[in-house]
Amino acid sequence: MTDKLIIFDTTLRDGEQSPGASMTRDEKLRIARQLERLKVDVIEAGFAASSNGDFECVQAIARAIKDSTVCSLSRANDRDIARAAEALKDAQRGRIHTFIATSPLHMEKKLRMTPEEVLEQSRLAVRFARNLMEDIEFSAEDGYRSDIDFLARVCEVVINEGATTINIPDTVGYAIPELYGQFIKTLREKVPNSDKAIWSVHCHNDLGMAVANSLAGVKIGGARQVECTINGLGERAGNCSLEEIVMAVKTRRDYFGLDVGIDTSQIVPASKMVSTTTGFVVQPNKAVVGANAFAHASGIHQDGVLKARDTYEIMRAEDVGWSANKIVLGKLSGRTAFKQRLQELGVVLESEGEIMAAFAKFKDLADRKSEIFDEDILALVSDESVTAEKEHYGFISLAQRSETGEMPHAEIVFTIGGREVRGLSDGNGPVDASLKAIESQVKSGAEMVLYSVNAISGNTESQGEVTVRLQNSGRIVNGVGADPDIVVASAKAYLSALNKLQSKAERVAAQG
Amino acid sequence: MTDKLIIFDTTLRDGEQSPGASMTRDEKLRIARQLERLKVDVIEAGFAASSNGDFECVQAIARAIKDSTVCSLSRANDRDIARAAEALKDAQRGRIHTFIATSPLHMEKKLRMTPEEVLEQSRLAVRFARNLMEDIEFSAEDGYRSDIDFLARVCEVVINEGATTINIPDTVGYAIPELYGQFIKTLREKVPNSDKAIWSVHCHNDLGMAVANSLAGVKIGGARQVECTINGLGERAGNCSLEEIVMAVKTRRDYFGLDVGIDTSQIVPASKMVSTTTGFVVQPNKAVVGANAFAHASGIHQDGVLKARDTYEIMRAEDVGWSANKIVLGKLSGRTAFKQRLQELGVVLESEGEIMAAFAKFKDLADRKSEIFDEDILALVSDESVTAEKEHYGFISLAQRSETGEMPHAEIVFTIGGREVRGLSDGNGPVDASLKAIESQVKSGAEMVLYSVNAISGNTESQGEVTVRLQNSGRIVNGVGADPDIVVASAKAYLSALNKLQSKAERVAAQG
Repeated sequence: MTDKLIIFDTTLRDGEQSPGASMTRDEKLRIARQLERLKVDVIEAGFAASSNGDFECVQAIARAIKDSTVCSLSRANDRDIARAAEALKDAQRGRIHTFIATSPLHMEKKLRMTPEEVLEQSRLAVRFARNLMEDIEFSAEDGYRSDIDFLARVCEVVINEGATTINIPDTVGYAIPELYGQFIKTLREKVPNSDKAIWSVHCHNDLGMAVANSLAGVKIGGARQVECTINGLGERAGNCSLEEIVMAVKTRRDYFGLDVGIDTSQIVPASKMVSTTTGFVVQPNKAVVGANAFAHASGIHQDGVLKARDTYEIMRAEDVGWSANKIVLGKLSGRTAFKQRLQELGVVLESEGEIMAAFAKFKDLADRKSEIFDEDILALVSDESVTAEKEHYGFISLAQRSETGEMPHAEIVFTIGGREVRGLSDGNGPVDASLKAIESQVKSGAEMVLYSVNAISGNTESQGEVTVRLQNSGRIVNGVGADPDIVVASAKAYLSALNKLQSKAERVAAQG
Repeated sequence: MTDKLIIFDTTLRDGEQSPGASMTRDEKLRIARQLERLKVDVIEAGFAASSNGDFECVQAIARAIKDSTVCSLSRANDRDIARAAEALKDAQRGRIHTFIATSPLHMEKKLRMTPEEVLEQSRLAVRFARNLMEDIEFSAEDGYRSDIDFLARVCEVVINEGATTINIPDTVGYAIPELYGQFIKTLREKVPNSDKAIWSVHCHNDLGMAVANSLAGVKIGGARQVECTINGLGERAGNCSLEEIVMAVKTRRDYFGLDVGIDTSQIVPASKMVSTTTGFVVQPNKAVVGANAFAHASGIHQDGVLKARDTYEIMRAEDVGWSANKIVLGKLSGRTAFKQRLQELGVVLESEGEIMAAFAKFKDLADRKSEIFDEDILALVSDESVTAEKEHYGFISLAQRSETGEMPHAEIVFTIGGREVRGLSDGNGPVDASLKAIESQVKSGAEMVLYSVNAISGNTESQGEVTVRLQNSGRIVNGVGADPDIVVASAKAYLSALNKLQSKAERVAAQG
């Protein structure tokens, strides 16, 4: 047992499984690079066997990342495992993470297998994986609701086969800290070779206790790996939040006595990147990364805080990467400064052409907005047309008007597969009219399930960033668009979502 | 000791202290009525002595609420306590909640008092309060960071003076479940008359553990009151979430063995009302009340869920008030149906004139939008001009246009103190132009610190709801506006925020 706590980030796998949070390859790469800067120990990059798209994401991340271990999920079968190993072939350090459910309910209803069959399949899966790679994690899905003696047998068997990490998820978010901690402790005591593996916890937040449960698994249970996501992203109520678990272990080092390797100053930038990319907002009262999480970040200084900062604050905002909203570039900034800032922000554009296109957009923005913030730059490059995504639909121009007493009206010019088209429509508002004008030509039939706007730096002078979530034939995609004109941003977001619907492959459901 | 857990809601007091979450009297009344429907045991309505406005809020709530105890916070001095008692005079059941800090840091740096002085002031405050009211709660601010022996002496003294509830807050969100539970247990053992009072916990969420800490205070420590807020609203990372603590105790009744009196089907309506009123969004991955909290609410049915619902769900969405987004009213709905729906939604408009005004807005909306949802109705009445708020600035009409390559332009007509004015402006986008057009006439000099938009039912055909947060001379207010035209909604929100800046009284800071 070591006194280091391993931080395993699954934003790109379990986080991405949230309905509406799916990301493109380029988005995932960008986030993986930020996770590397954050110094997470393990990046779960995806579920290679679930689709060709996911395979390519895992492969691209495995090739790009040098400092963190890159991991792929796989079911407990040879095909999945072989695909994971193939995707991870070029990784500096790779890990195969194979899983199977061990609770009576999941074995009977979902797998339709007997416990003995599950035990045998676990054995064979880990044996197969271990022949392909050294670093093997085994997860017992719905582990916390499993029979502890059966689960102990499974763990013993897979450790014997060479699994190096054993993860016991609370898949449905049912645990209570004392009980979960005790469960992990008892389980480890029942497994004769438990000292041959690192134990891991993976908690969901359905009852709001994912962080406390994970910490009890560590402190009471002796686990030394925590699986977590940025902003607590994940299915349903999400996973354990990376930022909360890391800051709890750091702030209460007196109690936990553990080291984490995280560069906490990268936490807020990571949070913003994930929120911007997925369109999943962070509520103001979210711990650590919410806009109000630090009293003085909101411009309000309470009497107590002025007198002695630690009367109300147990962490420092700057330690987690909150800093003054710095003006970084302006109209006169050149291409070199722009390129350098992109690098500092962790944005890697693949070709010179892409950098040129982004720089052109930057100059265009700088003409209209005197102060360009980091958020503006990130929004600019998250705009699809800058990146290498295939662009079937492209924005050209928009004219719209509304006046009290008349129907709002919009006219949009855009491209469909290179061909220029023009759409006209009325609507309930100028945004509605603009999107209907697009739809009048595209006729996608997609249903809009979410529309949200955020002014990037808090006021309406800055760029507006719009997220549009479309659903079509069971597929859900997010499109993001940014522009100082909210109506234009909406049209761009809608086109971006249509592009994703166009290119997106189906995936199979994975473990929670 | 009873086996009932008392739910003490402080959304209207500690929740409202979040920068930007301040509410008007009518908004607070509406939320208080929803809390009564939710069957919370105690509603902390405000801090009567902090301002005349707060006094009036507490008084209005004390008069309106019949089923819940209504409580006012007060510092530990006679003036504050007398104001609280006066505001609560007409309550069916009233409670005075008096507090003083007991941690070395807070006593020395904030209060500049010795421990003996704090002990004596606690004694005198509770003695004074007990002469005015039977139900007295005493809180030891920053209790968890206090010397336990000193804290035990304070508790013993105030129980002797007749305090009926003793609350031990983790004011700065520093606790860990095992430690906090043990702290409460040890403290109670050190207080000889501890059985004469009900013990209460009040936890903040800075490390993401407010719910787990509160539950440990209950299970390990023996507390029987939990202080919490809807959506976990509150300063910094907020308070313990009511919805999470209630559902944890209900879902894990096997472990806690406690009853709560809450009508859980009112949880989601309460969450939406608080979010709409304050403009504080609820993130999709928020436990219980987030849009994604229940897998099947998102329209996605996983294979596992279809085969057996409890493979992935430990609660039922309908139990917490998630229901299909019902169409409730349309163009042909009459005034009686509208009035009845308002009642069902817990909206009480004070006069016939207000109902008429709201109904006119409803008909106007129904002309433009065929399906009117509950959310639309709530947005409509949360629009300031329907309610009894004083309206210094009033919207009349707006015309705006934008076109690629030209500066967006807006022209707005509105009233200032009854006088009609017209403002013209360009801007970076149509919203920016509209708000600048208002500002060209008002010249408030306020800084916009937040601008956010939500389409109420998820698409752009529905109403857009805009929240504008303005800051001026240290005061922060939210304005909310709703309209199918997002630019109009923005202008209304801006005017509403200006109205609040106009009328808002200063307040003193209270305990966390």
